[in-house]
Amino acid sequence: MPTTELFLYTLQLADSTLLMGQRHSEWTGHGPVLEQDIAITNIALDYLGQSRNLYQYAASLYNNAPETEKAAMDKYIPRLWKSFQRELQEDDLAFLREEHQFLNVLLTELPRGDWAFTVLKEFFYSAFLMNLYQDLLHSTDNQLAAIGEKSVKEVSYHLRWSSEWVIRLGDGTEESNTRLNNALADIWMFTGELFVPAAYEQIVVQQGVIKDPQLYKEPWQEKVRTIFQQALLDVPTPSWMQHGGKEGRHTEHMGYLLAEMQQLQRTYPNATW
Amino acid sequence: MPTTELFLYTLQLADSTLLMGQRHSEWTGHGPVLEQDIAITNIALDYLGQSRNLYQYAASLYNNAPETEKAAMDKYIPRLWKSFQRELQEDDLAFLREEHQFLNVLLTELPRGDWAFTVLKEFFYSAFLMNLYQDLLHSTDNQLAAIGEKSVKEVSYHLRWSSEWVIRLGDGTEESNTRLNNALADIWMFTGELFVPAAYEQIVVQQGVIKDPQLYKEPWQEKVRTIFQQALLDVPTPSWMQHGGKEGRHTEHMGYLLAEMQQLQRTYPNATW
Repeated sequence: MPTTELFLYTLQLADSTLLMGQRHSEWTGHGPVLEQDIAITNIALDYLGQSRNLYQYAASLYNNAPETEKAAMDKYIPRLWKSFQRELQEDDLAFLREEHQFLNVLLTELPRGDWAFTVLKEFFYSAFLMNLYQDLLHSTDNQLAAIGEKSVKEVSYHLRWSSEWVIRLGDGTEESNTRLNNALADIWMFTGELFVPAAYEQIVVQQGVIKDPQLYKEPWQEKVRTIFQQALLDVPTPSWMQHGGKEGRHTEHMGYLLAEMQQLQRTYPNATW
Repeated sequence: MPTTELFLYTLQLADSTLLMGQRHSEWTGHGPVLEQDIAITNIALDYLGQSRNLYQYAASLYNNAPETEKAAMDKYIPRLWKSFQRELQEDDLAFLREEHQFLNVLLTELPRGDWAFTVLKEFFYSAFLMNLYQDLLHSTDNQLAAIGEKSVKEVSYHLRWSSEWVIRLGDGTEESNTRLNNALADIWMFTGELFVPAAYEQIVVQQGVIKDPQLYKEPWQEKVRTIFQQALLDVPTPSWMQHGGKEGRHTEHMGYLLAEMQQLQRTYPNATW
């Protein structure tokens, strides 16, 4: 079975979880109270752990691919790595790829915003990941199944934590409700991309490795309705949705994010720590 | 005459003017009115031009130095450049050096802040540069003299422009006066470093190439008094001053600044455009 599409799909998940972790980690030392500072930092670490597992798998897919497949994958491999003359590693994929090579959904690259923005983004993404990982652990691909099994417990906690925060802020003070509504107005248009498969994703679906992400839309909407009802929030009406991240077309925030995230490895290429 | 100290002094000026330009350029498209957006962008371009001339001179000092001198300068040369196997160029010095290799005064690396912060910082720095460049054009070093002559007209405009803005904001509304006073409280402690020569600077002074920067303190204070009087601002009393930038010890802002400024060259090392 050709692995280029599986490689790209794995990168998409790896990139998305890496950026969730990166953005959340910006809260470290700045959380509203110490307990929540630690909570968001732990969630960031969970995401980084998931992205590491996914990058390791993506790197092994590349390293073990026949030359003809490698040629197709090379578009997403950091140019700098070629000069290292060693096998591809997880850090190369995270820290040396260029903006157009990243396949994360746009939702995950948005600036952290205020606390309402962060918890609402986390709620939307973990509600999606919850369904995804629950299916992934039954995948015909053993590696993805193992990653799904390991990650589903983490995401289950993220979803509970963020749901509670959405309810607390929505059904809180006038200011917290206003902030959550402002966040909703900014984030909503980035949720549609989660459920629209990219071309490579469709092929992995056809191979029977993953389920069609469109199937996750209905249970996700149901979850959103349930939590929003308790949070006294209105579910926005269907509207135009942003997309492009899964194909490597990003928002204006992406360059700054990568500049900061990749500085160390770009300053000391191929260093050993 | 040994050139290591002259090389470091030239870098200090180059780094400081580069960062003035970099921070000012962050206003492009965000200025308070279109005319001033263009003014601050032009000032940024003047600074970038000055830094280019200074980096070119620093690179030529390095390229033409005997091997024994090069060994001393190497501490400030980007490691990556070694692999390029060509002469050192201005861009290598600006875009591939690491934080501790930058010798700019701390004043120039501070975040741009609001408009009051930017114009006050510009006023303080151009009032210093005005005296410096006026002396530099009589330097025994022909290159520095030429750079001084070319730059003094630019700085003369920067100083007039920023003086007018300091007066306008100080003698303006209550809010503009408050903002200027807040900026003053934040910036003042970074002005002392301008007049304290670093070890290498003292040697260039002894060589008769530049004047002792301590000589610029009195005329600078006089200029500040004159403008502050019109701006209804109190000159702060002498107090503890920050230092370290001239020796490569920087504020917490420096890493983020370099990450953003250097991303392109670090992503495409030694590319030709």
